[in-house]
Amino acid sequence: MKIYLAGPDVFLPDAMEIGRRKAAICAAHGLTGLYPLDNAIDVSTGEVSLNIFKGNQAMMDAAHAIIANLTPFRGPGADAGTAYELGYMAARGALCLGYSNDPTIYAERVRRFTEVSSQDGRLVDAEELTVEDFGLSDNLMMMHALDLGGSRFVTPRQAPADIWHDLTAFEACVRLAAERVGLR
Amino acid sequence: MKIYLAGPDVFLPDAMEIGRRKAAICAAHGLTGLYPLDNAIDVSTGEVSLNIFKGNQAMMDAAHAIIANLTPFRGPGADAGTAYELGYMAARGALCLGYSNDPTIYAERVRRFTEVSSQDGRLVDAEELTVEDFGLSDNLMMMHALDLGGSRFVTPRQAPADIWHDLTAFEACVRLAAERVGLR
Repeated sequence: MKIYLAGPDVFLPDAMEIGRRKAAICAAHGLTGLYPLDNAIDVSTGEVSLNIFKGNQAMMDAAHAIIANLTPFRGPGADAGTAYELGYMAARGALCLGYSNDPTIYAERVRRFTEVSSQDGRLVDAEELTVEDFGLSDNLMMMHALDLGGSRFVTPRQAPADIWHDLTAFEACVRLAAERVGLR
Repeated sequence: MKIYLAGPDVFLPDAMEIGRRKAAICAAHGLTGLYPLDNAIDVSTGEVSLNIFKGNQAMMDAAHAIIANLTPFRGPGADAGTAYELGYMAARGALCLGYSNDPTIYAERVRRFTEVSSQDGRLVDAEELTVEDFGLSDNLMMMHALDLGGSRFVTPRQAPADIWHDLTAFEACVRLAAERVGLR
């Protein structure tokens, strides 16, 4: 089973090394991890971002599953690029798995970034935009896509010391994927 | 042509009214706008968020196109739920259109939220995470999905006074969708 390894890991200073570690964990469970940075990108054409897009899309099209790292990125919620990829794979009927190394629920995390109050029965931020308050870890579209297209979102009881490098929750997802292969 | 109207508009205090205005603009161009809040949600079961998910997914499955409001939401980038939906519709081969009422490029917006510096040839934020620096409005997966699955991202030269209620850029997307219908 080929698994697309989505997440803001590609933005880490040691992005290549994290990819190698994730692929090695997949291999240890008899699975193949496809990591975006393993695409050979033609940087000579001046269309670097388009070539990255095409490489990632081809990888997703070749994969049977996705493990999305939805650890909050540059704000209270998941990286939008990763969310896009989760939606893409959900529509393809892929096995959808996801994790976050931040165990808090979304509404709690929003409080770290903006004032949150109750207004007419809604939880709202400083801009008066509703804060989703369903006790979920992130936006309901992603959370329920995981419920229905894979298994429940994986998150630790306590955030690890290094939320960008700890791969315990990731490995739990790989194990879930390996179980699914066994069930086939 | 049925168009799924994705965006954080559903989180506005006057979310229903915005939906009505968007649907009316679609109708004026001979198109049908499907707005998430128009789903009848069963709130009696205790599974409200799951019912919202199922309603939205059924709407997406019934739509031929998506117009995604990618105006930055609660941070420098697009709403992750909207990003998920754009990915979902892209994988379904739908006509993908998107807009933002904030015309700045992503790397510039990140500077509003965190310190940005150059490090080993990469633009990085305070956490040393790479800031995408391709001159694009948002994450490259979304931006190129629009290029290839619809038309170039729509954004005004200057941000309107009310970024959450101005529908000029939205209407430009509707016009693009109507042209596509005409070309069929």
